[in-house]
Amino acid sequence: MNNTTFKGIIAYPITPFDQNGQVDTPLFKTLTERLIQSGAHGIAPLGSTGVLPYLRDEEKEAVTTAAIAQVNGRVPVLVGVSNLTTERTIYHARFAEKAGATAVMIIPMSYWKLTEDEIFHHYEQVASQLSIPIMAYNNPATGGIDMSPALLKRLLRIPNVTMIKESSGDIQRMHFLRSALGEETAFYNGSNPLALGAFAAGASGWCTAAFNLIPALNQQLYDAVCNNDLATARTVFYQQFELLQFIVAKGLPAAIQAGLKIQGIESGYLRSPLQPLTEADYQQLSEILARVN
Amino acid sequence: MNNTTFKGIIAYPITPFDQNGQVDTPLFKTLTERLIQSGAHGIAPLGSTGVLPYLRDEEKEAVTTAAIAQVNGRVPVLVGVSNLTTERTIYHARFAEKAGATAVMIIPMSYWKLTEDEIFHHYEQVASQLSIPIMAYNNPATGGIDMSPALLKRLLRIPNVTMIKESSGDIQRMHFLRSALGEETAFYNGSNPLALGAFAAGASGWCTAAFNLIPALNQQLYDAVCNNDLATARTVFYQQFELLQFIVAKGLPAAIQAGLKIQGIESGYLRSPLQPLTEADYQQLSEILARVN
Amino acid sequence: MNNTTFKGIIAYPITPFDQNGQVDTPLFKTLTERLIQSGAHGIAPLGSTGVLPYLRDEEKEAVTTAAIAQVNGRVPVLVGVSNLTTERTIYHARFAEKAGATAVMIIPMSYWKLTEDEIFHHYEQVASQLSIPIMAYNNPATGGIDMSPALLKRLLRIPNVTMIKESSGDIQRMHFLRSALGEETAFYNGSNPLALGAFAAGASGWCTAAFNLIPALNQQLYDAVCNNDLATARTVFYQQFELLQFIVAKGLPAAIQAGLKIQGIESGYLRSPLQPLTEADYQQLSEILARVN
Amino acid sequence: MNNTTFKGIIAYPITPFDQNGQVDTPLFKTLTERLIQSGAHGIAPLGSTGVLPYLRDEEKEAVTTAAIAQVNGRVPVLVGVSNLTTERTIYHARFAEKAGATAVMIIPMSYWKLTEDEIFHHYEQVASQLSIPIMAYNNPATGGIDMSPALLKRLLRIPNVTMIKESSGDIQRMHFLRSALGEETAFYNGSNPLALGAFAAGASGWCTAAFNLIPALNQQLYDAVCNNDLATARTVFYQQFELLQFIVAKGLPAAIQAGLKIQGIESGYLRSPLQPLTEADYQQLSEILARVN
Repeated sequence: MNNTTFKGIIAYPITPFDQNGQVDTPLFKTLTERLIQSGAHGIAPLGSTGVLPYLRDEEKEAVTTAAIAQVNGRVPVLVGVSNLTTERTIYHARFAEKAGATAVMIIPMSYWKLTEDEIFHHYEQVASQLSIPIMAYNNPATGGIDMSPALLKRLLRIPNVTMIKESSGDIQRMHFLRSALGEETAFYNGSNPLALGAFAAGASGWCTAAFNLIPALNQQLYDAVCNNDLATARTVFYQQFELLQFIVAKGLPAAIQAGLKIQGIESGYLRSPLQPLTEADYQQLSEILARVN
Repeated sequence: MNNTTFKGIIAYPITPFDQNGQVDTPLFKTLTERLIQSGAHGIAPLGSTGVLPYLRDEEKEAVTTAAIAQVNGRVPVLVGVSNLTTERTIYHARFAEKAGATAVMIIPMSYWKLTEDEIFHHYEQVASQLSIPIMAYNNPATGGIDMSPALLKRLLRIPNVTMIKESSGDIQRMHFLRSALGEETAFYNGSNPLALGAFAAGASGWCTAAFNLIPALNQQLYDAVCNNDLATARTVFYQQFELLQFIVAKGLPAAIQAGLKIQGIESGYLRSPLQPLTEADYQQLSEILARVN
Repeated sequence: MNNTTFKGIIAYPITPFDQNGQVDTPLFKTLTERLIQSGAHGIAPLGSTGVLPYLRDEEKEAVTTAAIAQVNGRVPVLVGVSNLTTERTIYHARFAEKAGATAVMIIPMSYWKLTEDEIFHHYEQVASQLSIPIMAYNNPATGGIDMSPALLKRLLRIPNVTMIKESSGDIQRMHFLRSALGEETAFYNGSNPLALGAFAAGASGWCTAAFNLIPALNQQLYDAVCNNDLATARTVFYQQFELLQFIVAKGLPAAIQAGLKIQGIESGYLRSPLQPLTEADYQQLSEILARVN
Repeated sequence: MNNTTFKGIIAYPITPFDQNGQVDTPLFKTLTERLIQSGAHGIAPLGSTGVLPYLRDEEKEAVTTAAIAQVNGRVPVLVGVSNLTTERTIYHARFAEKAGATAVMIIPMSYWKLTEDEIFHHYEQVASQLSIPIMAYNNPATGGIDMSPALLKRLLRIPNVTMIKESSGDIQRMHFLRSALGEETAFYNGSNPLALGAFAAGASGWCTAAFNLIPALNQQLYDAVCNNDLATARTVFYQQFELLQFIVAKGLPAAIQAGLKIQGIESGYLRSPLQPLTEADYQQLSEILARVN
């Protein structure tokens, strides 16, 4: 592992809505506090789990402010600030910096497929306006762009792009990153079912929404890896594998919202077009949670 | 063909920006007027070519108003109103209706992959708030979702979803649509290099940004099809095929902006992260345009 | 169209087996005769429909000899001679030439993915041992290799590689081929549901097993194209589209064998691991055939 | 891990040819002996590395006999017997059994895409004619079929299908297999760059041709896993990662043949259409081998 601010389990809170479809900031703070109390090593508001792209500018600002206030310096905070245009990305990144974020996470959101030069230029322009570090985030399934390992390597030449989050679901990408970048560069796993493989490959941390539901199991996996105990890591991983698969297959916002409810924790509403889990899926999640806890 | 408002060539204007990155509305009106003067059968502002997702709400409204004012009833106007959230889609669709749009075009934009039920619900909610027709638009490459023919068929049960635009690039989808929906349902081709195949398959119209650059060739293809003259359609199609391939490969906003400039027509600037064509691409486009015109 | 031996409908007979799993040569000759009587413009034994790769060397030779004897010069004969190794491909190609084949069809079968140089070298070595023309055949779904348009263009530089059969199912490949190779080079469509699009694109012929089941409809489509009558071509195409889709989806050998049986024509048995259509599929095919005939 | 005959490193010899393109059996025996001397836990002739599908029946028999004679009971022998037809698969499987093979490996080779029922039936028919165990082998890249985890699970219900080799390159498949099948079922990794992830996931063994070139590094990885020492496993894995990537990217037969030659070991010739590494690739492999050894 290496010498970075973020390591271990970086927990992603959902952004809960009230019945009228407005962001429920008090509930967001309560859910964030739960993550800290459960031992999260970092908090990442406005990720995919936090439905960043479905929020309006003022809502993004409110969530950013609320997260940083609630965390209050106890752990580092990684704020999602991705936007389709460069200008808006800069705007939100600067807002996060001023609000006290430890770092920002940026995925190159795509409508028109961007060239590698366009992506590089986008990051470079944003980085030039910031003093805090940037985590470059690769997730073709949500962002619509699959950044090649070569491009990721190139992005790391920008001084404050210091971390990479890989969510393509391909363990070989992580092998390549570690192999091409050396042990000094931090990479993070964002694909839940790859958690074991990613730690085996040398990931510095695991960016996960699963921590909302099964914090102890997540923590035990990380501890086993830190203890160089592969057998325990494997056992603990398979205990949580079914849940990890489920929440990814069904979409993190709906799956986490349902899972919290099943565990008796208020979790608000989703914003349309996202809909709650179907009854059958809800039932299946109940059974999985009963098995793993 | 069938009895619909939109048929033939539906032309997509770009949304030009000034040097400061602001929408250049006067230039937009000039470019729209050119399309009408060139004989477009319909005008579609705020499409992918018009970089809809990169615009702020007030910019979308200004472009909508400008397009409808400039067209002034001479041809039907199809306004793009897609948005990630249902609430914002309804907002922009209602704005377009009040502004005088003939119909709206909606692609189910994706960050989280939506289920078929979520997509259906999204269209249904929007449609219930509108009196004008909706064109459902399938374009996995930009929207991130590939709507199955079965889902498209289901969407057509919503009363004011009356048209389908297919941009997946797979001619078999159009065969299926025609085969499953019958001759009464209008489908439109949004994949430029498929123009010949789509008309052969029975498409009612061709949604294209190419009309900004080669209106006569586009028109001749449509005329040949209307005249049941396959040999001429084929000849005319191959005359424009190279250009159609190029503009799709390089991205429509940048390619059309450059092509207009090459033809001596002011076309403004792009909004970052989109960048102008590279010099090599610009040169290649110049050569292609010299050949086809 | 252009000046080649093969044009129009090139019919693919199945290779029928007896109850003991041996090739039923007399039945093969009967089925081949039916195709000629139905008006096929060419006969192509040992294609994918003829389960070439599932046959032993002596069986391939028997089928080749039987086909050429039965056709007896009435139409040109195109014999499939593909093999994983270059040495065996040469062997079978030379056998076909000596037996009187008009041309041979070669797909670069793949176990290990071949490089473009390996594929080129393979064709070149085979071609150097032959006097008759070669049709290069691209079908990633069965052959496991997708030859790029650039490679196909390169293969055409080998003197006796004079024809291309495209079965990738992507109409844009045909547009590219015609565009890159000019009108003089013959290309053939091997993807049944693309028949209309391929003829619109300028294909010289249609390589099809559907002719075993619906010869009149196949012929009418070709005639309409020859008559430059797009509207009729479209109508006739949609009449057969459902059947074309079905036989491709279920696999040609099993679907044609079942379709012949449904039409009261003896069609023998399949060779394991290929199995007859399920009962449900058989029933569906019966209904489709009842509709189209 | 579990109680099976095969565990650890199962080494795949190449099948070398002489200058006339004939199998060089004496050299094959020499190369096999090297693998045993290097400490292989099992020997697997006639795998993809051994170019099984490019051999004629009598060549397959000669290689089988030679391998078993050379190994002479020192380690278990796993013989590849896959064939497109069921009848030929049975033939070769029975030959291997009589010759003394410990088990056979079968991939459902595809020309026509087989249904799950056809694949199951194929394995069932072969298994019914054998007394030795079968390893079902999934490798979509070479075999052309991607067997779903559900199908693999179904195959394991056939009494002598007792092992699964996964080469799809997706670590999540292994997680699923272990999760769905329990710890008792042996699965083996056939994707070289996944070696670390697969052992972390609980694979019983690693089927690899890399052992021809870097036996010590392969062995050290396995030892570290057996010692529950993740940190060492990771270090050793990254030492060999570059080579593992290279040999997969370039094709195992050509890459191993070249690698042996670079190390001063006679390795014969390839069979066309397979060609030797290009000079640039050969040079790159030399450099990689210099680095890792």
